Amino acid sequence: MMAEKEELLHAENRTDLALEAGERLRNENVVPKGLRVETLNVEQADAEITRVYVESEEAARRMGKPMGVYITIEASSLAGEDKAYHQEISALLCRQIRGFLPACKGREELLVVGLGNRAVTADALGPRAIDHLAVNRHLLALYGVKSTASGDNDCVTVLSAIEPGVMAKTGIETAEVVASITDRLKPDAVLVLDSLAAGSVSRLYSTIQISNTGIAPGSGVGNHRSAINQETLGVPVIAVGIPMVVDAATIVRDAVRSAGDSGRSDEGRRVDSQKRDCRRDWDNSDRVRGGSVSPNLSLEEFRNMYVTTKEIDEMTERLSFTLSEAINALTG
Amino acid sequence: MMAEKEELLHAENRTDLALEAGERLRNENVVPKGLRVETLNVEQADAEITRVYVESEEAARRMGKPMGVYITIEASSLAGEDKAYHQEISALLCRQIRGFLPACKGREELLVVGLGNRAVTADALGPRAIDHLAVNRHLLALYGVKSTASGDNDCVTVLSAIEPGVMAKTGIETAEVVASITDRLKPDAVLVLDSLAAGSVSRLYSTIQISNTGIAPGSGVGNHRSAINQETLGVPVIAVGIPMVVDAATIVRDAVRSAGDSGRSDEGRRVDSQKRDCRRDWDNSDRVRGGSVSPNLSLEEFRNMYVTTKEIDEMTERLSFTLSEAINALTG
Amino acid sequence: MMAEKEELLHAENRTDLALEAGERLRNENVVPKGLRVETLNVEQADAEITRVYVESEEAARRMGKPMGVYITIEASSLAGEDKAYHQEISALLCRQIRGFLPACKGREELLVVGLGNRAVTADALGPRAIDHLAVNRHLLALYGVKSTASGDNDCVTVLSAIEPGVMAKTGIETAEVVASITDRLKPDAVLVLDSLAAGSVSRLYSTIQISNTGIAPGSGVGNHRSAINQETLGVPVIAVGIPMVVDAATIVRDAVRSAGDSGRSDEGRRVDSQKRDCRRDWDNSDRVRGGSVSPNLSLEEFRNMYVTTKEIDEMTERLSFTLSEAINALTG
Amino acid sequence: MMAEKEELLHAENRTDLALEAGERLRNENVVPKGLRVETLNVEQADAEITRVYVESEEAARRMGKPMGVYITIEASSLAGEDKAYHQEISALLCRQIRGFLPACKGREELLVVGLGNRAVTADALGPRAIDHLAVNRHLLALYGVKSTASGDNDCVTVLSAIEPGVMAKTGIETAEVVASITDRLKPDAVLVLDSLAAGSVSRLYSTIQISNTGIAPGSGVGNHRSAINQETLGVPVIAVGIPMVVDAATIVRDAVRSAGDSGRSDEGRRVDSQKRDCRRDWDNSDRVRGGSVSPNLSLEEFRNMYVTTKEIDEMTERLSFTLSEAINALTG
Repeated sequence: MMAEKEELLHAENRTDLALEAGERLRNENVVPKGLRVETLNVEQADAEITRVYVESEEAARRMGKPMGVYITIEASSLAGEDKAYHQEISALLCRQIRGFLPACKGREELLVVGLGNRAVTADALGPRAIDHLAVNRHLLALYGVKSTASGDNDCVTVLSAIEPGVMAKTGIETAEVVASITDRLKPDAVLVLDSLAAGSVSRLYSTIQISNTGIAPGSGVGNHRSAINQETLGVPVIAVGIPMVVDAATIVRDAVRSAGDSGRSDEGRRVDSQKRDCRRDWDNSDRVRGGSVSPNLSLEEFRNMYVTTKEIDEMTERLSFTLSEAINALTG
Repeated sequence: MMAEKEELLHAENRTDLALEAGERLRNENVVPKGLRVETLNVEQADAEITRVYVESEEAARRMGKPMGVYITIEASSLAGEDKAYHQEISALLCRQIRGFLPACKGREELLVVGLGNRAVTADALGPRAIDHLAVNRHLLALYGVKSTASGDNDCVTVLSAIEPGVMAKTGIETAEVVASITDRLKPDAVLVLDSLAAGSVSRLYSTIQISNTGIAPGSGVGNHRSAINQETLGVPVIAVGIPMVVDAATIVRDAVRSAGDSGRSDEGRRVDSQKRDCRRDWDNSDRVRGGSVSPNLSLEEFRNMYVTTKEIDEMTERLSFTLSEAINALTG
Repeated sequence: MMAEKEELLHAENRTDLALEAGERLRNENVVPKGLRVETLNVEQADAEITRVYVESEEAARRMGKPMGVYITIEASSLAGEDKAYHQEISALLCRQIRGFLPACKGREELLVVGLGNRAVTADALGPRAIDHLAVNRHLLALYGVKSTASGDNDCVTVLSAIEPGVMAKTGIETAEVVASITDRLKPDAVLVLDSLAAGSVSRLYSTIQISNTGIAPGSGVGNHRSAINQETLGVPVIAVGIPMVVDAATIVRDAVRSAGDSGRSDEGRRVDSQKRDCRRDWDNSDRVRGGSVSPNLSLEEFRNMYVTTKEIDEMTERLSFTLSEAINALTG
Repeated sequence: MMAEKEELLHAENRTDLALEAGERLRNENVVPKGLRVETLNVEQADAEITRVYVESEEAARRMGKPMGVYITIEASSLAGEDKAYHQEISALLCRQIRGFLPACKGREELLVVGLGNRAVTADALGPRAIDHLAVNRHLLALYGVKSTASGDNDCVTVLSAIEPGVMAKTGIETAEVVASITDRLKPDAVLVLDSLAAGSVSRLYSTIQISNTGIAPGSGVGNHRSAINQETLGVPVIAVGIPMVVDAATIVRDAVRSAGDSGRSDEGRRVDSQKRDCRRDWDNSDRVRGGSVSPNLSLEEFRNMYVTTKEIDEMTERLSFTLSEAINALTG
């Protein structure tokens, strides 16, 4: 029970953005040692870059995030249609990813992983980004280096991509699929693209997080079961994500409180409902239901809900393109 | 500003379910004259049927719903996989729809409309139901009545269906498309299938509303601009819907309050952000953001958000089938 | 039987391209009066424009095409990736369409119809072109003319679009759906986009036909049952199509001949197959089957087959974009 | 050139069905040693089962198929809607697959691979079959054996599935993806589902081939580059496929011949086309084009074409379900 409360408290703080997690600690005046933040304005692109360094076990525990570096690009107009702006952000994102990549010695091989469920619009960012990707590994295999646009470059970037799908459909953990392909292709690094959950509506569609920590269990809209990181794959894993949903637990929590006592009698409902006649039903209905959410939702149910917006399809399409362009630019 | 508050208050009460709207009035002890509710238990199907009668102008105004009859089937196991249960509910739904249809004199023609946006999982219930529908209008035209399963029936039901799509893609109001086809086909009735927004998470995937009022402006996940009803189409319009999302305004409201003052300085943010250096940013960050939702969301933004769950794709697929089976059974 | 032969002969000549139909008559030295062809080279775009005028009843009968004007753009590199080339062709196509449109007096309203079946790759050209279209009718309704890119233009072009779907799914003739929407919107002209069947593989993906005759029964990959033209809609109908398949009857015919006698015993097969033992089966198998196509395919079966290529998905995506860009340019 | 002819001759004989390949040798009276065929009627299911044994190097070379056993189920009504019939065929198919599987000692793990391109209707049979599959590997991992329907069975069958996608999108050879996952999961056997190309239209949608040879290079609608078999994967590989297309080379060949001389002047065309004026163009047009296919198609172009029918989407949906039901029944 105590644990439940603990968990709920933690649930309420769920965000995939290190920036938000840090702000919350700051708001609670409990910034641990080993948590550092740097901000850098990027005038030309009307964007702001923040780096969050999680450098101690304690910081990681408090943040609920693995140790490592988390870069956030806050691009207030990212939800908009302006193509030039999206190109600028793609270029900016490309440089941030490059900064995490090992130095290229003539040739580098990158495996891009599109996480998520294509059938759920809010979770389709990764798979749709793969659709726009200019993979070239098979071409290089056939025609050799000459055929690449970057033939005149001193580093040839070889791109391949997979969409591991969802466990309910494959019966295989996403992390297992990624590890299998990585073992075989032995890329120099793995880029993982995913839809994120933010704690604040203001983050939706306007924030890009790039980290060198890979994917932690429970993160993403799909709540991945196992870690996908350098430890599990044996090569650097760079995670790139954009918040497409807001964690509902965060928002619902307060609403639940407001549902108050009415919750208690909810058990009674199923019992009553059999011997109810029309009048009594109506009289009871305020006891029976009401409150803006079912007051006895389990934690599991909280975890299971998210908030999104009506433009989710348009946003997923637009932002998946911005991500893929940044990655395509790595080969430029 | 006062109007804003008013509106917000109303926004918080947004639900497409007459049953919920009625309960809220009941909770506020303001049940108007001309609002009547009847409940009927349906043992065999572990389902409960409630009829809400909105019979006065005032009741309609207070409910925020057109005058008419709203039938609710509460089927607690509807989210589950049990096929026999879904067949029972389909049969139950079929009977409720039939009850709203004009008497069939030998032959009846029904036009089924799948409202919503196929590309947005939570809004795809209507279009996906159309996919499962056994339309026969073209076959009857080709081969005549004999070819129907209901050849031995004393009423031949002719089914046709359309997916009007979304205005952003067609440039045409959904209501205009439906009216166009109705004018041409002159069906005896129009059945409109839509994803609904509930005010309570406990309604998701477990409630079916059937009404003889058609679709009111602003209802549904897609927020239809214009009415689709007997007045606009000239034939009876039966609306069938299932809550696939919970209105976020309802839930977010309380959270917004909690965001409190921090909101005010939000304007300041953009200004500051230019001359900020790393230290000050960090010191300011609690002023800058925080609060579980952006505190200066407009009403429009509220309206634009909804809460759904991770099984949305599976639920849409399953429930669209249950709807289509009920309609196919009309021809049986 | 004689009729069958006749029909087969005609089947063999099936093509949606007036240019090919004319060439065949020419090859058979039976160019009727009232059939005229003009060719115009368009150097800059590495494309050739041909106009076929069908100006007499006899020409129409011989051609198997309605009287009217058929413009063909032969763009040999259209299947390629060169974006600049596709832009040139889009501009060229835009001018050809404009040439068929009634003069614009300040404001023109165009309804674009994407014919075909999105689920069948070779038939999805029309629906996918709609996906890329910049419809503005709803925006003009909301914000008025100012909001259009063409605000400074002396002609405002209002675009709306529909994807009528396929009869097997709607139970409604495509032509009925188009007529319904046209009656309602009363556009100045209707543009119909469709996948075509050519008689020659060399036409695939490299030819665009624009005509002022609309869609004739039996044309297109989907074989539309009814006409969609000025007579049925009451406004000018401009049809734009690209060959995505080659009519199989054309190609299969010769192969069938080669199947020769083996065909006769095919009836025998089903009979034998019951009392066959392994040895005899093997001995009989040459009588039983063989020949590169089943020799007793009905005409219906011929009509039902088409030839396409492995890049069909890529081609449909690329060419649907080229079409939509040409139409978007009408509003420029 | 001689080689070209050779190849063309071979191209014309392309079929994925061992049964057809054998018949052709029989028709040419060149049945090699080590090629054996057995037929078995299966009255109850109105289906015929044939086994082709390829037991010598020479037989394999002549057949253009690896040594092994090829089972063909000819189910004449498979294209129809009769559900009971499809269930019978699924059961029949299940037994044939079981016959190829290693004996189950308490527990067997099967990896199902859906080959092909979901975006190309004729090539989507494998991926769509995966959609209908009841994978259980993740459930067994979570809840253990009890949770399976086959808890009371003396063999627990563990199902997992992957859709490796197409190389153009991943940059990775399909065979590499399959090998990666197989290395990791170490299943007892791999089942590969694929769309096949037949040499005869009469085979479309009505024939199922099951073999213990896996997938040979160049087979399938997608023409896989590398082998997927026991040699490359280290476990038994059972391939199950249905002809969804007819190889166009087979059919086109004769048509090309008929194009005859006109072909020669085709080179001349591009030259002429520049200085052509309208009259001369028309006079030349018979020389210029004509013939039902472009006479100078390359072999590559032949290989690239296929013939299919208008019901391809409906057939793919129906048959993918029949395949998945057979595999689901393995766990029964």
